[in-house]
Amino acid sequence: MAQPAIPVTPALKDDLDIVIPTIRNLDFLEMWRPFFQPYHLIIVQDGDPTKTIRVPEGFDYELYNRNDVNRILGPKASCISFKDSACRCFGFLVSKKKYIFTIDDDCFVAKDPSGKEINALAQHIQNLLTPSTPFFFNTLYDPFREGADFVRGYPFSLREGAPTAISHGLWLNIPDYDAPTQLVKPLERNTSSLRYVDAVMTIPKGTLFPMCGMNLGFDRELIGPAMYFGLMGDGQPIGRYDDMWAGWCAKVICDHMSLGVKTGLPYIWHSKASNPFVNLKKEYKGIYWQEDIIPFFQSVVFPKECITVQQCYIELSKQVKEKLGHVDPYFQKLADSMVTWIEAWEELNPPTKAAPAAQPNGVKKDAPAPKPK
Amino acid sequence: MAQPAIPVTPALKDDLDIVIPTIRNLDFLEMWRPFFQPYHLIIVQDGDPTKTIRVPEGFDYELYNRNDVNRILGPKASCISFKDSACRCFGFLVSKKKYIFTIDDDCFVAKDPSGKEINALAQHIQNLLTPSTPFFFNTLYDPFREGADFVRGYPFSLREGAPTAISHGLWLNIPDYDAPTQLVKPLERNTSSLRYVDAVMTIPKGTLFPMCGMNLGFDRELIGPAMYFGLMGDGQPIGRYDDMWAGWCAKVICDHMSLGVKTGLPYIWHSKASNPFVNLKKEYKGIYWQEDIIPFFQSVVFPKECITVQQCYIELSKQVKEKLGHVDPYFQKLADSMVTWIEAWEELNPPTKAAPAAQPNGVKKDAPAPKPK
Repeated sequence: MAQPAIPVTPALKDDLDIVIPTIRNLDFLEMWRPFFQPYHLIIVQDGDPTKTIRVPEGFDYELYNRNDVNRILGPKASCISFKDSACRCFGFLVSKKKYIFTIDDDCFVAKDPSGKEINALAQHIQNLLTPSTPFFFNTLYDPFREGADFVRGYPFSLREGAPTAISHGLWLNIPDYDAPTQLVKPLERNTSSLRYVDAVMTIPKGTLFPMCGMNLGFDRELIGPAMYFGLMGDGQPIGRYDDMWAGWCAKVICDHMSLGVKTGLPYIWHSKASNPFVNLKKEYKGIYWQEDIIPFFQSVVFPKECITVQQCYIELSKQVKEKLGHVDPYFQKLADSMVTWIEAWEELNPPTKAAPAAQPNGVKKDAPAPKPK
Repeated sequence: MAQPAIPVTPALKDDLDIVIPTIRNLDFLEMWRPFFQPYHLIIVQDGDPTKTIRVPEGFDYELYNRNDVNRILGPKASCISFKDSACRCFGFLVSKKKYIFTIDDDCFVAKDPSGKEINALAQHIQNLLTPSTPFFFNTLYDPFREGADFVRGYPFSLREGAPTAISHGLWLNIPDYDAPTQLVKPLERNTSSLRYVDAVMTIPKGTLFPMCGMNLGFDRELIGPAMYFGLMGDGQPIGRYDDMWAGWCAKVICDHMSLGVKTGLPYIWHSKASNPFVNLKKEYKGIYWQEDIIPFFQSVVFPKECITVQQCYIELSKQVKEKLGHVDPYFQKLADSMVTWIEAWEELNPPTKAAPAAQPNGVKKDAPAPKPK
């Protein structure tokens, strides 16, 4: 007789929310069903709140439209972008889970070079649950993967690594290019036979990277308050820099707090290129401003007194206002929104007075204590 | 009628030397013949100079044994290690070429996952002839590879990159582990089906890495004087840190001079693990000292006046003496040898008085001018 199947609980089933910003029916979830169905979804409906978004049957979800955002946040709703996928960060705000995975609705299950379907979520979880190595480069990539290790010359005292705060996944088919590159290389595709790189690596301390929000996991307790996607879309002079902004802010804070950021696996299948002409309109100020933004982030230093992500983020908002305010008035507004975001975060995620070990969200004992209100 | 074959000149045929340190007959070259035969070899014979090293027919080479080292360098020969593969740097010293590829004699041609033999030298050349991107991380790895590019959010002003000074290749079969890891994981193998990573990447500015000398290319004009493999082997308290030392020195100088270091492809097939018990004896002081060495290198700052590699290296030797001298008297001796090495370098590679463009070795116009004597 066959043994009865032992039910396997998916990793972090009760500790992870999947956040999806969307303007359309979520048929793309059908392909993800084997991997996502056990998890809770937070759907942030962008644009017209009267439109009904269809979610395939059998998924456990909560859905927020703009009316919900306004109702829940009141005047603080001004910090949440409208008509832009930057609105996804509202989902980070209302989640009560330790981990977040966020994915775009035009992203499908990719196949590895052997033809096997890639469980992107499982790979993000593995990335997040193993340490990062931001303080020294390991030439054989992630030493915590099976069959890998630290190479000769890697200091033993650094092999403990750092807690991983962010897991940044990549894309097959349509690469995440800016509008000028899209225009120049309209036919370029990232295929699993040609450009699949079987690696996960830590982005070293002190190094900035372009964080894409299409396929992204993070530890909400470690870095959540820094995952603000800024002011983009309707009424704003800029778009398509929401995830970049979050990435730069989060990275400098991770560096300050000795947290790790990984990039590489997993790949998802990015189905369609957005319109490069529309993108160019959204991006052009960002492309220009970026030449000031990057040197700014490269020079950010936090005072030692900043021991929580919230404190770092408030400090960062001050530096943005002071050092980028002259680039464009937009940065003054953005800096104000960064403060509003933290106020909203603290309102919806009040620090408890209990000892860290007893906190409902399970803050790690060795994580910095939340700032008292 | 068939077209007459067009003779193809291998890339950099007259601009690159292959440096091989060895104590045995060089039968391993047979497997490399299709790739190496057009190039000039510099063989540095380690150990007993009366032994005859057999080199397969048809290779163009010069061979130096310890007697040659002593004759050519006189008292300065003290800076070249004896009975240790660190002696390879003598080959860098006597070369007159712009590029060096150095490889160990237990390294064979590896196959990629499709079963194709990998021309490691061709990949190193490609790495060296395309720019690095040390100032910002590109999540799709080397943007200069075919089918790749800079991703959205990569600042346009940084896309020119930096000249590549070093190309660090990896190993299939036997990974480059330290003795403790060898002892703990005696059976671990890096196979092309399991752990082949199809990527080249730049090690970001400000990040140290463990440079292995087994499979290494570099631009001798850009970084040659920093590729000193230290004092190891006979009469020294330490071994197996020769390439690490060179890597740390070279990396901090590359960072100061805005030069790039790449790692990843190409793989070679590393045929046999060295004895972990012997290795432990060689390594144990290094493992211990390294805990001081790494913070030292992480804190090295060069004065603005250091505008050549030689100047940086002399400055580094002073800082080694001052800041690591207390760890062990060995570092005082090493610091002195670093100075001797530069003296030997300048003796054998005298700066010319001609303008950079007219220099026989073809120093790039935009490279820093050699220090006048």
